[in-house]
Amino acid sequence: MSMNSFGHVFRVTTWGESHGPALGATVDGCPPGVPLEAGMLQVWLDKRRPGQNKHTTQRNEPDQVRILSGVYDGKTTGTPIQLMIENTDQRSKDYGEIEKTFRPGHADITYHQKYGIRDPRGGGRSSARETAARVAAGGVAREVLKALVPGIEIKGYMTQMGELHLDRDKFDWDAIDGNPFWLPDAGAVADWEKYLLQIRKDNDSVGAAVEVVVRGAPAGLGAPVYGKLDTDLAAAMMSINAVKGVEVGEGMAAAALRGTTNADEIFMGPDGPEYSSNHAGGILGGISTGQDIVVRFAVKPTSSILTPRKSITKTGEPIEVITKGRHDPCVGIRAVPVGEAMAACVVLDHLLLDRAQTGGLRGPIG
Amino acid sequence: MSMNSFGHVFRVTTWGESHGPALGATVDGCPPGVPLEAGMLQVWLDKRRPGQNKHTTQRNEPDQVRILSGVYDGKTTGTPIQLMIENTDQRSKDYGEIEKTFRPGHADITYHQKYGIRDPRGGGRSSARETAARVAAGGVAREVLKALVPGIEIKGYMTQMGELHLDRDKFDWDAIDGNPFWLPDAGAVADWEKYLLQIRKDNDSVGAAVEVVVRGAPAGLGAPVYGKLDTDLAAAMMSINAVKGVEVGEGMAAAALRGTTNADEIFMGPDGPEYSSNHAGGILGGISTGQDIVVRFAVKPTSSILTPRKSITKTGEPIEVITKGRHDPCVGIRAVPVGEAMAACVVLDHLLLDRAQTGGLRGPIG
Amino acid sequence: MSMNSFGHVFRVTTWGESHGPALGATVDGCPPGVPLEAGMLQVWLDKRRPGQNKHTTQRNEPDQVRILSGVYDGKTTGTPIQLMIENTDQRSKDYGEIEKTFRPGHADITYHQKYGIRDPRGGGRSSARETAARVAAGGVAREVLKALVPGIEIKGYMTQMGELHLDRDKFDWDAIDGNPFWLPDAGAVADWEKYLLQIRKDNDSVGAAVEVVVRGAPAGLGAPVYGKLDTDLAAAMMSINAVKGVEVGEGMAAAALRGTTNADEIFMGPDGPEYSSNHAGGILGGISTGQDIVVRFAVKPTSSILTPRKSITKTGEPIEVITKGRHDPCVGIRAVPVGEAMAACVVLDHLLLDRAQTGGLRGPIG
Amino acid sequence: MSMNSFGHVFRVTTWGESHGPALGATVDGCPPGVPLEAGMLQVWLDKRRPGQNKHTTQRNEPDQVRILSGVYDGKTTGTPIQLMIENTDQRSKDYGEIEKTFRPGHADITYHQKYGIRDPRGGGRSSARETAARVAAGGVAREVLKALVPGIEIKGYMTQMGELHLDRDKFDWDAIDGNPFWLPDAGAVADWEKYLLQIRKDNDSVGAAVEVVVRGAPAGLGAPVYGKLDTDLAAAMMSINAVKGVEVGEGMAAAALRGTTNADEIFMGPDGPEYSSNHAGGILGGISTGQDIVVRFAVKPTSSILTPRKSITKTGEPIEVITKGRHDPCVGIRAVPVGEAMAACVVLDHLLLDRAQTGGLRGPIG
Repeated sequence: MSMNSFGHVFRVTTWGESHGPALGATVDGCPPGVPLEAGMLQVWLDKRRPGQNKHTTQRNEPDQVRILSGVYDGKTTGTPIQLMIENTDQRSKDYGEIEKTFRPGHADITYHQKYGIRDPRGGGRSSARETAARVAAGGVAREVLKALVPGIEIKGYMTQMGELHLDRDKFDWDAIDGNPFWLPDAGAVADWEKYLLQIRKDNDSVGAAVEVVVRGAPAGLGAPVYGKLDTDLAAAMMSINAVKGVEVGEGMAAAALRGTTNADEIFMGPDGPEYSSNHAGGILGGISTGQDIVVRFAVKPTSSILTPRKSITKTGEPIEVITKGRHDPCVGIRAVPVGEAMAACVVLDHLLLDRAQTGGLRGPIG
Repeated sequence: MSMNSFGHVFRVTTWGESHGPALGATVDGCPPGVPLEAGMLQVWLDKRRPGQNKHTTQRNEPDQVRILSGVYDGKTTGTPIQLMIENTDQRSKDYGEIEKTFRPGHADITYHQKYGIRDPRGGGRSSARETAARVAAGGVAREVLKALVPGIEIKGYMTQMGELHLDRDKFDWDAIDGNPFWLPDAGAVADWEKYLLQIRKDNDSVGAAVEVVVRGAPAGLGAPVYGKLDTDLAAAMMSINAVKGVEVGEGMAAAALRGTTNADEIFMGPDGPEYSSNHAGGILGGISTGQDIVVRFAVKPTSSILTPRKSITKTGEPIEVITKGRHDPCVGIRAVPVGEAMAACVVLDHLLLDRAQTGGLRGPIG
Repeated sequence: MSMNSFGHVFRVTTWGESHGPALGATVDGCPPGVPLEAGMLQVWLDKRRPGQNKHTTQRNEPDQVRILSGVYDGKTTGTPIQLMIENTDQRSKDYGEIEKTFRPGHADITYHQKYGIRDPRGGGRSSARETAARVAAGGVAREVLKALVPGIEIKGYMTQMGELHLDRDKFDWDAIDGNPFWLPDAGAVADWEKYLLQIRKDNDSVGAAVEVVVRGAPAGLGAPVYGKLDTDLAAAMMSINAVKGVEVGEGMAAAALRGTTNADEIFMGPDGPEYSSNHAGGILGGISTGQDIVVRFAVKPTSSILTPRKSITKTGEPIEVITKGRHDPCVGIRAVPVGEAMAACVVLDHLLLDRAQTGGLRGPIG
Repeated sequence: MSMNSFGHVFRVTTWGESHGPALGATVDGCPPGVPLEAGMLQVWLDKRRPGQNKHTTQRNEPDQVRILSGVYDGKTTGTPIQLMIENTDQRSKDYGEIEKTFRPGHADITYHQKYGIRDPRGGGRSSARETAARVAAGGVAREVLKALVPGIEIKGYMTQMGELHLDRDKFDWDAIDGNPFWLPDAGAVADWEKYLLQIRKDNDSVGAAVEVVVRGAPAGLGAPVYGKLDTDLAAAMMSINAVKGVEVGEGMAAAALRGTTNADEIFMGPDGPEYSSNHAGGILGGISTGQDIVVRFAVKPTSSILTPRKSITKTGEPIEVITKGRHDPCVGIRAVPVGEAMAACVVLDHLLLDRAQTGGLRGPIG
């Protein structure tokens, strides 16, 4: 990852500000001949789109993506794919006050310190709107993965929102798409809704944890020791706005475990090695095992809240800041499709890197 | 990060296997004119070196680093610095059995699947011995940082080992260097020793959490949105052997917080902005605030234990694996200097990147 | 350089096809606070724009560039700058025949072989239209250079067109901008025009050599041994469509020289070292000397000519190809602003890289 | 290419100074399972080695390469390969005068200006001794190519030395290895020897042109528009010490040609497309055609000559410089194996990149 690009062979560069005319992603290194049209990407953008339900910001953006290059006759050509999303709901307002003030917990002050200038309109480049470009790029990655690894599946869901935790015993993969929290437990949805409404009433916001699972990825992805699959997944997730922690498999809980418990024992199954458990999250030594790849990340509560917080102005004067506007009480919800998109891009990139170095060779077992 | 290299301007490439003739690091992009000699690096290598006390592996490696290039007349010249460490304690033994068997929880099986071949001697490239090269490179980064940012300090310590947690109320920065756990609480050391001896007696191993703090780094380091400072720190820590989770500031605990609690309020201090707290871990929007940069990572318990675990051979036969040899019951201990080294490299790299793009310009406040 | 991107810190990614809806460049790593508006870029695009005079293609493209991101309040913000140019003159026609045929000397056949698919409309990605994006990006680089290195000047001109050579004895820097060939010899323009008209009448095309000079760049740019300034300049020029050779200073003629002639002798001038000559083209050991940086490249005659040439179809049938359409008889003319743009980007990138590693330190002489 | 590394997937990093203890190359991204031992590399190093005949420097270096990592059981493992060559003939002498003086035409002055410090011993990092590391890395690339593309052949030879030019009509591929100039014309060798002896007697040196041909590379290598095969070849050759110009196919001569002459007509042969000529040097639109890839570069005459030249000291005093020592009168001779090595690395890297993006898919013809 480097400035505004990530990926080695399947390489994504995003651009654009929250309230500029448009934002987008340039996808380079895409394999040729893969069927692609805007509608295939739109489905993921719609999942991330604001204003979908009462739990997300009411900014009304259609988030229509256009493919400006890299596709001919309905197929990718191997040349860079430009994905552009126009901003339509840029409410004109006076940014004078916002420009002079640093919201606590925001990037306002650090952008100012680093660059000496910042685009204050809707958070500029630091806005979570940038993640729309990631989701579009992730949609391309999904189509390529579908062509190269039939049956691969990438799904994200929430495992925590503030005090509420997913009950793993009630985990239901099929429930995920049926509720606004992408919660794998339909029975808990009502409680989560009630909890979030209270947060909103309190003029507050709340953090969340999101888990992304990649099912059906082959063994052998990842290039030790710095280009590990988990290294790139960690970077990918940490780069998402508001993310403060990333875990693979057991994650931070591994600190509490003993070796006798933690190691996933290996058996020979009909189609190759199988494992008694998946503490490793599908990655050993930075290389995928063929099990589910499991990544988790924590999203902090947004600092854009209606409760006043102490801060300073550019001239160093004390001020109390209230962030009015159309903000999500839990940005973690909309981080779900973003995490999926990042996982899709990283896994595809490693698939291409692997066939570069090894030609897709797999050492035989059994 | 890419294969065996990391860093953008200050770029480190490591090479070498556990039981080959040597291993090392090539440090490219180092600023010129910085005083450097092997002794300055040796002090950090000695900290990581095995056999230092009864809690770490008894492999006896002097880990003497030699500087083969890039230094003239006691100063860096700006050309690549080759740091080589010869392996001296490569016990000759029969690797026939090891080569045919996959140890559960190790990279044995994934290296085999990816490459179709692996160096079985002491874990080959996947061995934690590779981290000696990181520590040497980190030593170079420390000397450059010392020259460019007087007063900067980078320190790691353990915050958890299995069931034992650091008591934050007794946190003592000055205690860290005085005990084998780098524990910031001298009073707890005896309990930690006792606990670890029991683990060893149980033929088991245990996980750990390590925290690294960078004090005195300037505001403005990090380049959104993918080249964020925390993105690179997350990748750096996740690339360390056995690491399964990375956190910045509140980390995963941010998922439980509310916005009213989480945002660090800002005040004007005599030398610039000050903060009421540091939930953010010194990074906002991917850019450093000037507060302490706080990163934490979890190290899983090593799978090299004397208790038998089920696995398979290359031919798919079931087998019980016991890993004899000289293994650390808690690899997290020796991960402390490694985490420090990675933090030093990343922070220096971003310092150089920042002066590339901004020339070190800082937007004024007050 | 990598796929569709170049530059290390000042990094340019271009996208778009000849007859798609638009093409553009994403400029990442741009220093903040530099005044920038579309008009500053348009002046260079107009220089490259087709249809400017009778010697270039009559395709009528306004080549209006829009800045979609990275600029606020008339200044660069340090975030990626998206430069988009819409294609307006995409003549609708039947590409059926073109799609089935490989034009000799074109990328048709290699794109087909590599990707199995190609966009046949106007050459798709391989069209020289892509260079509009380079020129736009080069315009950004020029504005930054202007801010960082007052007085720096970058100018390109033709030194050869087919049988005609620039007479170095009549070299006139001030004549360059006054004629359609950017010829530094006003007296020769009439002959060049006559020559080119004859080429066109012959239904033929002709090659050219272009020289680009950077005046006023500081000493110290370039990072040996692979990141040399001339390495990056060579790559930059060779990446331009139809370029087959690149020279620095004496270039290929150095093969004929003796050491006594070739070495530029050094004298002490009032402001530092001066040189008796500039055989080196301003670069020694890959690092700039402070003299004029002199790069030259050869552009082959376009293969799009009205004279029939033998070729084959996708099915392997023999065919005679005549390329109708609006083609330049000498594409070298419009390569002049493109070469300037590439030089601007490379020199700026190295300026930023240099301040990353050395902080702009310069070893004193005298 | 970036600082001291080049290549995207097959990535080479070199390190070391002329008179340090050792120099070497780290080869990352090498495909696994390829037979490799030091002897396979030594043959190429011996070709480049000084003191082989009376026309090259009499510095006596055995240039024994050691493989320190990345190989197990005689095969590459996919992990980084460290190739180290110890310097043995580092004549101890007083570098005091050399350190204070800038040799005209050398990198002395630019290294000093950029870094404020330089290793004066034998030219330090700017010495052509660094090319030994390239040749070793190129040897690895050759072994991998041999495994992946049976029948591929890479050969370099001189086409010019000062006033002498290769007579293309007498071109004899089989003569190349039989004479000290790698001259494809055995009958001309005596004249070349005589000419070079006269140069030496004149206390002078002379430039040269070297051509490298890759036979049997598949069509489809190269990734437009910046990652073109010729872009990377141009950078690779320009990065070699003393190179001032690079050409592909017709090279600079393309400036003189007409389109009717330049385009290589296409025919259908028994095994696919064939071409009437190879003006393009085997590359169209940055992608290989399957024809011979032809690259040429010019090497300037070394500035290390016994004839005095005017220069200055670090304190700005005028001085006359004579470079005593063991210098080649024509460094172009030993540049032949270096050019071959760079070509091998670049072609292999593009082969791996191509299979990353396209999986080695080739669009059918006929």
